[in-house]
Amino acid sequence: MSVTFADVEAARDRIRSYVHETPLLSSHQLDMESGATLVFKAEHLQKVGAFKARGAANAVFSLSDMEASSGVATHSSGNHGAALARAAQLRGISAHIVVPENAKLAKVNAISAYGGRVIRCESSLAAREAALERVVKDTGAAIIHPYDDARVIAGQGTTALEILAQTDRLDAVVIPVGGGGLLAGSSVVFKTQSKVKVYGAEPASADDAYRSFKSGIRVISHTPKTMADGLQTTLGEQNFAIIRERVDDILLVSEDEIVAAMRLIWSRLKQVVEPSSAVTLAAVLKYPELFQNQKVCLILTGGNLDLDDLPF
Amino acid sequence: MSVTFADVEAARDRIRSYVHETPLLSSHQLDMESGATLVFKAEHLQKVGAFKARGAANAVFSLSDMEASSGVATHSSGNHGAALARAAQLRGISAHIVVPENAKLAKVNAISAYGGRVIRCESSLAAREAALERVVKDTGAAIIHPYDDARVIAGQGTTALEILAQTDRLDAVVIPVGGGGLLAGSSVVFKTQSKVKVYGAEPASADDAYRSFKSGIRVISHTPKTMADGLQTTLGEQNFAIIRERVDDILLVSEDEIVAAMRLIWSRLKQVVEPSSAVTLAAVLKYPELFQNQKVCLILTGGNLDLDDLPF
Repeated sequence: MSVTFADVEAARDRIRSYVHETPLLSSHQLDMESGATLVFKAEHLQKVGAFKARGAANAVFSLSDMEASSGVATHSSGNHGAALARAAQLRGISAHIVVPENAKLAKVNAISAYGGRVIRCESSLAAREAALERVVKDTGAAIIHPYDDARVIAGQGTTALEILAQTDRLDAVVIPVGGGGLLAGSSVVFKTQSKVKVYGAEPASADDAYRSFKSGIRVISHTPKTMADGLQTTLGEQNFAIIRERVDDILLVSEDEIVAAMRLIWSRLKQVVEPSSAVTLAAVLKYPELFQNQKVCLILTGGNLDLDDLPF
Repeated sequence: MSVTFADVEAARDRIRSYVHETPLLSSHQLDMESGATLVFKAEHLQKVGAFKARGAANAVFSLSDMEASSGVATHSSGNHGAALARAAQLRGISAHIVVPENAKLAKVNAISAYGGRVIRCESSLAAREAALERVVKDTGAAIIHPYDDARVIAGQGTTALEILAQTDRLDAVVIPVGGGGLLAGSSVVFKTQSKVKVYGAEPASADDAYRSFKSGIRVISHTPKTMADGLQTTLGEQNFAIIRERVDDILLVSEDEIVAAMRLIWSRLKQVVEPSSAVTLAAVLKYPELFQNQKVCLILTGGNLDLDDLPF
C-alpha cells in the first residue's frame, strides 16, 4: 500500500484546523554565503514545535470511532510522541508513548504536557518495540508508528503542499531523513506536482537511509551516533519504497557540519532549531555544485531541544 | 525640539524601502502561562537584527547631500553601530563607529560587515564621547547619536505604527528602555493614536530610566551591570522629556527574571533574541496584576548575541 497525491490532499483537508500553515523564512546574508536563493519552511514553528504534528493528526483523525476508542500508542524519541499525545488530546482519547531512556528531556516533558502517558524503556529498537507490544496488549490501543505508516506519511506530505502554494520556481528541496516519513510524503507531492529535485539530507554517522538508497537494500540494523536525535531512527519499509522511486539523492553531512549550519540558522535567521533541522543547510553548503544559483527550499523540521545542552 | 506623530509618519515614508515590516508572533502556550494574550513584535528579524535599523536609516536619509558628504559617526555598543554602518552603505557614504571595549563580538563584527570603520575605546560614557569627538574633528562626519536624536526617535517610532496596523484591541505595550529611543518614539505614536497603556521595562541593575521617571530628574551618571548589554546606555535628554509625558510606568526586572524570560522566548517562540529583548516578558510575568486577561504587545528589540556566551 503506497501513498498517493490524493492521500496527501485528503490529509490536508483532514488536519487543516489542527495544524499551522507555517511561514517561509529567508535571509539575504545566507543567500550571499551560500550562493543560492534559500527559503526555509519553518516547521519548528508548527504545533508541538515539529512537522510531526501533521502526521500524528492525520493518523488519529483517520481512525474510526471504534478504532480510536482504546486510545493510541507509539514509541518515539520525542517529537512524534508529543504530536501523538496532542492529537489524541484533541480527539479526547488516551495516548501511551514508549520513550527510550536517551530521549531529550524537552521532548519527554512535552509528551506529558499534552496529557500523554510516558513509558520509559532502553534505547534499542528491539526494546522500544517490545515495550510497545506490552502496552498494546494491556490497553488495546491502536499503534501509530512514527513514520512507517501511510497515514503518517500522507500527513507529513502536507508540508510540501504548503511549500508549493507559498513559493514558485523552486529548483530543489532538501529534507532531513530519519525514518523517512517527511521525505517520503513530500517527495510524493513534489514529484507529481513539480519538476523540483528532491534531496534527502542525513548525518554521516546515521547513514542507513543513504546506504539503503545506494544499495537498493534497506538497512535494518545500525547504531547511529549523531547529535541529530530526531534522525537516529531506521528508515521505514514503506518510506524506503517511496524514497527509492522518487528521491533524487541522499546527501551526507558530518557532525561538525551540522553544528556549523545550526549556528548559521540561529545567528542569521534568529531561529531556534534542533540539530536535525540543520542537516539541510549543512548539505547545501557542502555540495555547492548541486545548489549554486538555484532556488532551494530547506525544511526546518523541529525546534525542540534542551537549552542547557547546546553544541556551542 | 520634540518629536511629533507627523515626524514618525514622515520617517515611515522615508525608510520604507530600507527596512522590513516585521511580523507579530504568538504562542498559545505562553498565553496560558502568562494569563494574557501576548503578541511579540519581531524586531530581532529586522535588518541588522534589531529595531535600530529604523532610526539609523531615518537619520542618514534625513541628511542633506552637503551634511552627508563627510560621512556619519557615532558611538555604540553594537546594534546602532551596525545599523548606522548599513544605512551609510545604502547611501554610499562612510561610517565611523566608536565601540566600547566591552561590546559583544557579534555586534562588532556586524559593523565591519556593513563596511563601517570600527574605533575601539574604553567602556565609560566619557571615553566614548571623547573618542567620538576626535573622530568628528578628524573627518568632519555628521554625528548620529544612538538615541538622543529626534530623527532617530522618529525612526524607532515607526515600529509602533506597524504594530497598530497589524493588530487591534491592544490594551498595553511593553518596551525595553535603555537610551529611550524606541520607548520615546513608540509612546508618541501610541499616545496620539490609541488608548494603549505604554510601559517601559528595564533591568533593575541598570535602572536609570526608572529612577529618572520616578524622581522627575534625569539620572545622568550610573554604573549599569546587566547582561542586557543593549540597555546599559543612559536615558537621553530628549527621550526623557517624551517618556515623562507619555509613558505610564517603568517596570524593573532582575537578571534572573531576564534569563528565565529569555529561556521562555527561545523555547516557546523558538526565537533567538538577545537579553535586552527578554525584559518585556520578564515584566509581564512579574507584574500579572497589570496584564492579566489583557492583550499585550511586547517588542523583541534584537537578536544579536554571541552563541558561545549564553546565560544558560
